[in-house]
Amino acid sequence: MKAKVLIIMGSDSDLPVMEETGKLLEEFNVPYEITVSSAHRSPERTVKLVRDAEKKGVEVIIAGAGAAAHLAGVIASHTILPVIGVPIDSSSLNGVDALYSTVQMPPGVPVAAMAIGKAGAKNAAVFAVQIMGTKDPILTSALKDFKKKMAHEVLKKAKKVERA
Amino acid sequence: MKAKVLIIMGSDSDLPVMEETGKLLEEFNVPYEITVSSAHRSPERTVKLVRDAEKKGVEVIIAGAGAAAHLAGVIASHTILPVIGVPIDSSSLNGVDALYSTVQMPPGVPVAAMAIGKAGAKNAAVFAVQIMGTKDPILTSALKDFKKKMAHEVLKKAKKVERA
Amino acid sequence: MKAKVLIIMGSDSDLPVMEETGKLLEEFNVPYEITVSSAHRSPERTVKLVRDAEKKGVEVIIAGAGAAAHLAGVIASHTILPVIGVPIDSSSLNGVDALYSTVQMPPGVPVAAMAIGKAGAKNAAVFAVQIMGTKDPILTSALKDFKKKMAHEVLKKAKKVERA
Amino acid sequence: MKAKVLIIMGSDSDLPVMEETGKLLEEFNVPYEITVSSAHRSPERTVKLVRDAEKKGVEVIIAGAGAAAHLAGVIASHTILPVIGVPIDSSSLNGVDALYSTVQMPPGVPVAAMAIGKAGAKNAAVFAVQIMGTKDPILTSALKDFKKKMAHEVLKKAKKVERA
Amino acid sequence: MKAKVLIIMGSDSDLPVMEETGKLLEEFNVPYEITVSSAHRSPERTVKLVRDAEKKGVEVIIAGAGAAAHLAGVIASHTILPVIGVPIDSSSLNGVDALYSTVQMPPGVPVAAMAIGKAGAKNAAVFAVQIMGTKDPILTSALKDFKKKMAHEVLKKAKKVERA
Amino acid sequence: MKAKVLIIMGSDSDLPVMEETGKLLEEFNVPYEITVSSAHRSPERTVKLVRDAEKKGVEVIIAGAGAAAHLAGVIASHTILPVIGVPIDSSSLNGVDALYSTVQMPPGVPVAAMAIGKAGAKNAAVFAVQIMGTKDPILTSALKDFKKKMAHEVLKKAKKVERA
Amino acid sequence: MKAKVLIIMGSDSDLPVMEETGKLLEEFNVPYEITVSSAHRSPERTVKLVRDAEKKGVEVIIAGAGAAAHLAGVIASHTILPVIGVPIDSSSLNGVDALYSTVQMPPGVPVAAMAIGKAGAKNAAVFAVQIMGTKDPILTSALKDFKKKMAHEVLKKAKKVERA
Amino acid sequence: MKAKVLIIMGSDSDLPVMEETGKLLEEFNVPYEITVSSAHRSPERTVKLVRDAEKKGVEVIIAGAGAAAHLAGVIASHTILPVIGVPIDSSSLNGVDALYSTVQMPPGVPVAAMAIGKAGAKNAAVFAVQIMGTKDPILTSALKDFKKKMAHEVLKKAKKVERA
Repeated sequence: MKAKVLIIMGSDSDLPVMEETGKLLEEFNVPYEITVSSAHRSPERTVKLVRDAEKKGVEVIIAGAGAAAHLAGVIASHTILPVIGVPIDSSSLNGVDALYSTVQMPPGVPVAAMAIGKAGAKNAAVFAVQIMGTKDPILTSALKDFKKKMAHEVLKKAKKVERA
Repeated sequence: MKAKVLIIMGSDSDLPVMEETGKLLEEFNVPYEITVSSAHRSPERTVKLVRDAEKKGVEVIIAGAGAAAHLAGVIASHTILPVIGVPIDSSSLNGVDALYSTVQMPPGVPVAAMAIGKAGAKNAAVFAVQIMGTKDPILTSALKDFKKKMAHEVLKKAKKVERA
Repeated sequence: MKAKVLIIMGSDSDLPVMEETGKLLEEFNVPYEITVSSAHRSPERTVKLVRDAEKKGVEVIIAGAGAAAHLAGVIASHTILPVIGVPIDSSSLNGVDALYSTVQMPPGVPVAAMAIGKAGAKNAAVFAVQIMGTKDPILTSALKDFKKKMAHEVLKKAKKVERA
Repeated sequence: MKAKVLIIMGSDSDLPVMEETGKLLEEFNVPYEITVSSAHRSPERTVKLVRDAEKKGVEVIIAGAGAAAHLAGVIASHTILPVIGVPIDSSSLNGVDALYSTVQMPPGVPVAAMAIGKAGAKNAAVFAVQIMGTKDPILTSALKDFKKKMAHEVLKKAKKVERA
Repeated sequence: MKAKVLIIMGSDSDLPVMEETGKLLEEFNVPYEITVSSAHRSPERTVKLVRDAEKKGVEVIIAGAGAAAHLAGVIASHTILPVIGVPIDSSSLNGVDALYSTVQMPPGVPVAAMAIGKAGAKNAAVFAVQIMGTKDPILTSALKDFKKKMAHEVLKKAKKVERA
Repeated sequence: MKAKVLIIMGSDSDLPVMEETGKLLEEFNVPYEITVSSAHRSPERTVKLVRDAEKKGVEVIIAGAGAAAHLAGVIASHTILPVIGVPIDSSSLNGVDALYSTVQMPPGVPVAAMAIGKAGAKNAAVFAVQIMGTKDPILTSALKDFKKKMAHEVLKKAKKVERA
Repeated sequence: MKAKVLIIMGSDSDLPVMEETGKLLEEFNVPYEITVSSAHRSPERTVKLVRDAEKKGVEVIIAGAGAAAHLAGVIASHTILPVIGVPIDSSSLNGVDALYSTVQMPPGVPVAAMAIGKAGAKNAAVFAVQIMGTKDPILTSALKDFKKKMAHEVLKKAKKVERA
Repeated sequence: MKAKVLIIMGSDSDLPVMEETGKLLEEFNVPYEITVSSAHRSPERTVKLVRDAEKKGVEVIIAGAGAAAHLAGVIASHTILPVIGVPIDSSSLNGVDALYSTVQMPPGVPVAAMAIGKAGAKNAAVFAVQIMGTKDPILTSALKDFKKKMAHEVLKKAKKVERA
């Protein structure tokens, strides 16, 4: 099936974080591609991936990177597709550097920043589905189920804690 | 025309920032509603606004708030629509409190955080248009023009600086 | 015995921190209930817990949460009972995100923020007892004993260090 | 009428912030005393104020201080009354120093930290009323009215913004 | 005379900072070009400027940008010329965002980060001259004079302060 | 021999850090006492220790504490002896809370802040010796030897690295 | 009279802060010299000032500097006299850069860091007097009077606030 | 072969970081010397190393240091050679102290700051080669190969991730 989401990470060492995005997209049956490209070490490849994604009909691009995390911003500078950025905690600065580099984009070229690390990687998937859900009633319905399931999970955990 | 975007700000003192979102949506001819509701001072109203927005066919919700900026998160907890958060610099902490409160959402309930302040308010509009652009060729085309115009504006500024 | 304190944590992974609150309340013989509810994943449950607590005569609510820790604030928006917030260090940001999200509440809707982590979880219990102690001479007396015991503990530790 | 709340500020330069606490207590008809005492420049006076307050039947102590804001902590070390701390932004560090000095109390000696600055000063008053409200139905009722009024104020502001 | 240094700023609003670089290069008689190009709003132009600079024999590129300051990093990804980055304080975050975005580059693609703001803009010029000075005895000599003059300036200021 | 330096730590868990102070004082043959007292849990004991130290002829007081580290400040409020503060990294905030609580003292009541942790604990000893060295030629001489030894140690390490 | 304290500031622009040190030393009748020397722009002069100070019998050196405030550390590397550092808020980073550069000294070479800015400049004077007071009963007595006066000032301010 | 780069680290404990600089210089066949010297513990040695380096024809000096990392700045104050600074994460502050101490240099005395830790140590080597590459076509060519190799490495990693 044709990929609707493209996940790019700045380094293969980001995979343990960014595979969370893939797993959650699979739960929603959303086809995606996942690859590595660095804003700094492979800038041409990065632009080419964006151009190709547009041609292939990708609807949302998700970029995960750490340190001076320029990846999402560089992608956003080359496309009008929605770009979601996941700051990754891979330097000594706990991901604050990646967060600021991802979120503080100048007017006109937005990146949708998620939380630092795995929470953000998961939410990038959910947010991508929410974007696509604005025109796809099947995804809308899946999102509503997902929300109910989360509330239910809380209840189960509550029971466990209350009994402890 | 029916509003496609709902802009909620936590306080009327956020208007100078959040009106930037409105202005840019107007440039893209995207109908929107703008109002005030606090996550903390008017929680029922906030939930009601979200419920009504869903019924009215709003496609994206944008929330701007400062300090312990819970507004976007509270909204996201009640809807599966994409929620964009604009952290506002309204305490002594330069907006870092609002940024962290907006972006560090737990897995399952994403908020798309924009830059702190006016840059973020403008980008919230652009990102909302990008979301809607995934299914609307008129907006896609408008976004491409917008991108070209930005590049052109840079050129004009470059000329001015080079001559200075 | 009827619970006087309600402890809510945002996730069952917060239990190792928040059980410290429970332990200390037990030392003071203060009955409490402890459960899980997320501001974001189970918003309705959270509001219901607050409503029920008010009806059951709970006097103080303690909320522990990490990251964009909205839980205490969301609870405070729905009650006039004193709400104590414990920021938990559960993201890469060392609990600064949880602290700012908990303490920087807007005028009119206070949350009493405690220290990040276990120190705060313990102090939430002590502070709850201090609140109830303003009308309960048995608790007042217990708090005075507790204070004396702390000073005595310091003395014992001093002896050990002096001899080392 | 006998003061129920004692407000201490570390310096008379903190008055523009801490008078907000007084104003709000007046709205609730809660009698209070307000004075100046420094943890560092007048430590004996500070302890004496606390001792006297206990004897006079004060129920809550509110302390506002900036920089290395030890005032609330020093007070809490000498009393079992609930102590509320208001961090004040009076150094170049935007109040972060005052916040950390106020909130990061060790286990056993809690300070209830409010937001930095005027928001916190106002909330210190509300929280003090909430504490006293746990045993005073008149205050309970006043707090409920206060909450309704806040929600109503939001509505009025919303109208103004919607019409703008 | 052929430009040896290319100064690029992300926005014309950065000119008051970056003109300091130009002024100091003039003191050293080093020919330069100064222009505007955004990493995000005019990415193609930015790459083209770098390509042209290499062809024209530019030896050092200086980039000044604020917020998510990707400019220096994006330039460095496209050239092997030394790239000097000047973080500019143009958001609410006091330039910390620009500093982290500039300095935290991944292995293999260095940016030489200078101090935030005007101090950094001046030092970018001095550092560029130091780079070129490694092969140009006239610049070496000028740098030595510059250093002596600085020490002398300190002496003059010392006299003034001592007499005050 | 009569103690010239009094070392107080806020908790016995600070001993692994503060024993560094003791070790270095021993190298300089400076007699000291070391004990535990908390600014918050044993405030009377803390004041008594200070009063006794003054009477016994102690010349410098060193205080080590973490989190809301009020200990050095509280001691300084009760004496005119020089007080040296060692911020300890014992909360999730990496010692920044202890540093700010120690260093940001108000005008009139100084605390001499050292580096966070063991480096600071060692330097507290050296600084105490420097204070006493202003009137004791034996200590002056010992400090000069210490400085030479440090330079010599660097040389030995340099050799090892150069050969590696 | 022979100077007992040497005040060095990194730039004449630091004078409005560092003249506070001089004023307070005058209150204590402590002779001092005040001058300008940069760790970076006039390193030889800085070392020479330290050497001369030692020869002239100076007992304490106070250094005030902003940004990458190396001045106090560089001085401390060349002397065994007690060195007091005053971090000055002169960059966009609110003095945090100066604080960290001043306080985080490595083991063996202490700098006694004071608060950022004028509070620190005043306290540098008080701390210098405290150091000299350990061997000078006249200064001891003056410090005790100073402490009493401070407590008295607080009382006067308290009266004013209580009447307001 | 005569060393072209001098690497100085503040302590032998910095070797695991700074040996990365050496390894990468070897890849480029650039001769270097590596040694230890502290700005604070061996200031004379540090100045002598700089003077000798200048005489021996060293072209770039690289300094790695942690905490109050004055080393690069002190070196830069004594030479007009380009000085590259590598902030090292060796205190509890995650390297932020070292970063600020390295990068926030005053006008006239630049230090080229690299990323914190190993990424920065590697980039110091690459940047040194880029400086020397401005006059050495062999290095220019090697840098171009290095850049291509990096892009190729990304491709290989991408393949691995895509297949995973």
